[in-house]
Amino acid sequence: MTRIAVDAMGGDYAPKAIIEGAVWGAYEYNVPIELVGKEDKIHAELDRIKQEGILYSGNGILKPKKMKIDPDKLDIKITHASETIEMGEAPGQAIRKKKNSSIVLAVAAVAKGSSDAVVAAGSTGAAMASSLFGLGRLPGIERPAICLTLPSMKKPVVIIDGGANANSTPEMLFQFGIMGSTFSKNILGIENPRIGVLNIGEERGKGNELVQAAYRMFEQKKEHLNFIGNIEGKEVFLGNCDVIVCDGFVGNVALKTIEGASSMLFFMIKNQFKENFISKIIGLLAKPFMKKIYAKINYEEFGGALLLGVKGITVICHGRSTPYAIKNAIRVAKDAVEKEVNKKIEEFYQTSLNV
Amino acid sequence: MTRIAVDAMGGDYAPKAIIEGAVWGAYEYNVPIELVGKEDKIHAELDRIKQEGILYSGNGILKPKKMKIDPDKLDIKITHASETIEMGEAPGQAIRKKKNSSIVLAVAAVAKGSSDAVVAAGSTGAAMASSLFGLGRLPGIERPAICLTLPSMKKPVVIIDGGANANSTPEMLFQFGIMGSTFSKNILGIENPRIGVLNIGEERGKGNELVQAAYRMFEQKKEHLNFIGNIEGKEVFLGNCDVIVCDGFVGNVALKTIEGASSMLFFMIKNQFKENFISKIIGLLAKPFMKKIYAKINYEEFGGALLLGVKGITVICHGRSTPYAIKNAIRVAKDAVEKEVNKKIEEFYQTSLNV
Repeated sequence: MTRIAVDAMGGDYAPKAIIEGAVWGAYEYNVPIELVGKEDKIHAELDRIKQEGILYSGNGILKPKKMKIDPDKLDIKITHASETIEMGEAPGQAIRKKKNSSIVLAVAAVAKGSSDAVVAAGSTGAAMASSLFGLGRLPGIERPAICLTLPSMKKPVVIIDGGANANSTPEMLFQFGIMGSTFSKNILGIENPRIGVLNIGEERGKGNELVQAAYRMFEQKKEHLNFIGNIEGKEVFLGNCDVIVCDGFVGNVALKTIEGASSMLFFMIKNQFKENFISKIIGLLAKPFMKKIYAKINYEEFGGALLLGVKGITVICHGRSTPYAIKNAIRVAKDAVEKEVNKKIEEFYQTSLNV
Repeated sequence: MTRIAVDAMGGDYAPKAIIEGAVWGAYEYNVPIELVGKEDKIHAELDRIKQEGILYSGNGILKPKKMKIDPDKLDIKITHASETIEMGEAPGQAIRKKKNSSIVLAVAAVAKGSSDAVVAAGSTGAAMASSLFGLGRLPGIERPAICLTLPSMKKPVVIIDGGANANSTPEMLFQFGIMGSTFSKNILGIENPRIGVLNIGEERGKGNELVQAAYRMFEQKKEHLNFIGNIEGKEVFLGNCDVIVCDGFVGNVALKTIEGASSMLFFMIKNQFKENFISKIIGLLAKPFMKKIYAKINYEEFGGALLLGVKGITVICHGRSTPYAIKNAIRVAKDAVEKEVNKKIEEFYQTSLNV
C-alpha cells in the first residue's frame, strides 16, 4: 500500500502545521505516512494531537471544526533527521552538506522504497535538487518541471513549468507538454488534453526563439498529442486549453504576479467596503460569499504541485502551507502514485517519439 | 501648443469610439487634435457628435452622462488617410505596403511637426513599427519599449517592457530601467523612483542569464539610479518598487495573465452571488462597490501605454479602447509632450553612463 513520506520540518509553520496536515491526510485518505524530521519534535506534536485534536479554522467553504484524530490508530512511521535546510540556503550545496536533513532523508525513503512519494513544503530548490539527485530522471526527460493546477472558468488548467528551470530549451518545453498532458489525463481525468504554448500572440510565428522552436516541435508530433498552438496570457483562465507549456522563468513570474494581483484585488474590495456605514454592512453581508471565492482560488485546495520528470513522486507545497493544504497534498501524492503517473509519462513519451 | 494626432481608424470600436474619445480629450484638456483616417467617415462622426453629443455609459466611479460638445468650437485638424492596417497583418510588411494608412500618416504628422504625439488603438505591432521607422530612436536606446502604468496597493507602478520586444539583451533591460525611471519621476511625480528587475527570486544570483546580467549592469550604475534589486511577481502590486524592468515576452505574458485572472475573479464573484435568493440581493447591494473596484483597476483609467525610446511620443491604447480610454490617452500624450519626457530620458541616460 502507498506510503507517503512527509518532510515534517519544512514550511513556514513547520513542524506543527505539517504534522497536523499529514495526520489529517493519513486519516482522511486512509494512507500510511512516514514523518521525517527531528524525532522528539515529531513525538511531541503527535502527543499534542492525541490530546487536543486538530483545530481547523475553516476556509469559507469548509466550516471551522475540531477533529479528534488518534495518531496511535494510524499507520505512522517516524524517521529521524537531525538537520534542516533553511529557506536561504543554496539548494545544491545544502543537500550535499546536510545529508541528514529532513528533505534529503524523505527523498531517500522513496529511493530505497520505504515510501512511495514525498510531500515537501520547505525550500523548493532543496526539494527539487534532492529529488533530482536522489531519484534520478525519467528516461528521455532532460529536466524535471513543476506541474501546477489552477482553477479556470471551466475545468482546472495545468501550467508546466511553474519554476523548476530558469533556462529552458525547446526540447524541454516539448517534454513538459508530454508530462503535463499525462498529468491532466490521468490525474485530472481530462480526455485528450489540449496542449498550448504560452506566448505573446496566437499566430504561428509569434514570440521569442524558444517558443517558436517549441511550437514547431509540437506541430511535428501533432498526431500523438492534442496541440492547439499558442495561448495568450489572457486566455489562461478561460479553460479552453488544458495544459499550458512555458519556460520556468515565465511560468514562475506569471504565477506569482497572479498571486500578487489577486491579493491586491481582495485588499481593494475589503477597503472599498470600509468606505462608510452602509458599505460596511453590505461588506459584512458579502463577506461569506467573498470567502467562498477566496477558498476556490486558494492554493490550499490544490495541495501542492507535482515535480514531474523524476523517478518518484515529489509534491512541492507552498511555503505558507496550512494543515489543510498538506492534507490535500497527501491526496495529490497518493493519486499520483496509484494512477502511476510516471509509468504513463514514460509510455506517452515513447509513443510521441515514434512518428 | 501641443497637438495630438489620433489614428481614427485603429481599435475594435473605431472610428466611433476613437473620434468620440479624441473630441472629449480635446475639450477636457483644451488640446488641439489631428484626426487621421478616412475623411468622409471622420466628418460624418463629427457631425453626429455635434448633433447628438457624446454618451458616456459610466464606469462605477464616473456616473453615466451625456456631453454636449461642439467639435466646431475645438481646434480639430483632419488628415485624410485612404488605407487602414488590420489587426492580422504583419506589422513590418504592412507599414511598408500601406504608406497611406492612418497609423503611418499619424506618425508622419509627428515626424514633420504638424503634431507632437500620436495616440493609436489599432495594431500594436503596426504602431511600434511605424513609430520606430517614422521617428527613429533616441540616442543610446537600442529598442523602444512599452511603458505601462498599473495600480498597486500604494502608488502607481510602472512596468517596462510590456511587450515591444520578444527578445532582449541585458543592455536593453538597463535602458528600459532608465526610461521607466524617467517616466515615473516626470509623469507620475515619484521622487527618486525605485527600479527593480522582475525575477523568480530576490537573491542576487537568481533567474536566467538575461536578468542576471541586467542585475549586474544596474548594480554598476547604482550611484546614478535607485536600483533595489530583484522583484518577485507577487511583490509587483505591493507598491514597494516603482519601476519594474522585464523582457517584453515576460512582461506581456504577465500583464495578460493578470488581465485573465482578474476577469475570472469578477466572473466568479458574479456567479457566487447568483447562488440563491438572498445572495442575489446581497450581490445587488454589493454591485456598486464592485464596480468601483473594477473602475480602479480598469485599463481605461490609465488611457494607454507610452512607447518609450522613439524620437516622438506614441501612446499605444488597448484594442478595446472606449471613448473614456482614448480621452485619458490624450491626457497621457499631452503630459509626455509638455513634461518633455524624451529630453529627460536623454539627459538621464547621459548621466547614468558617466560613472
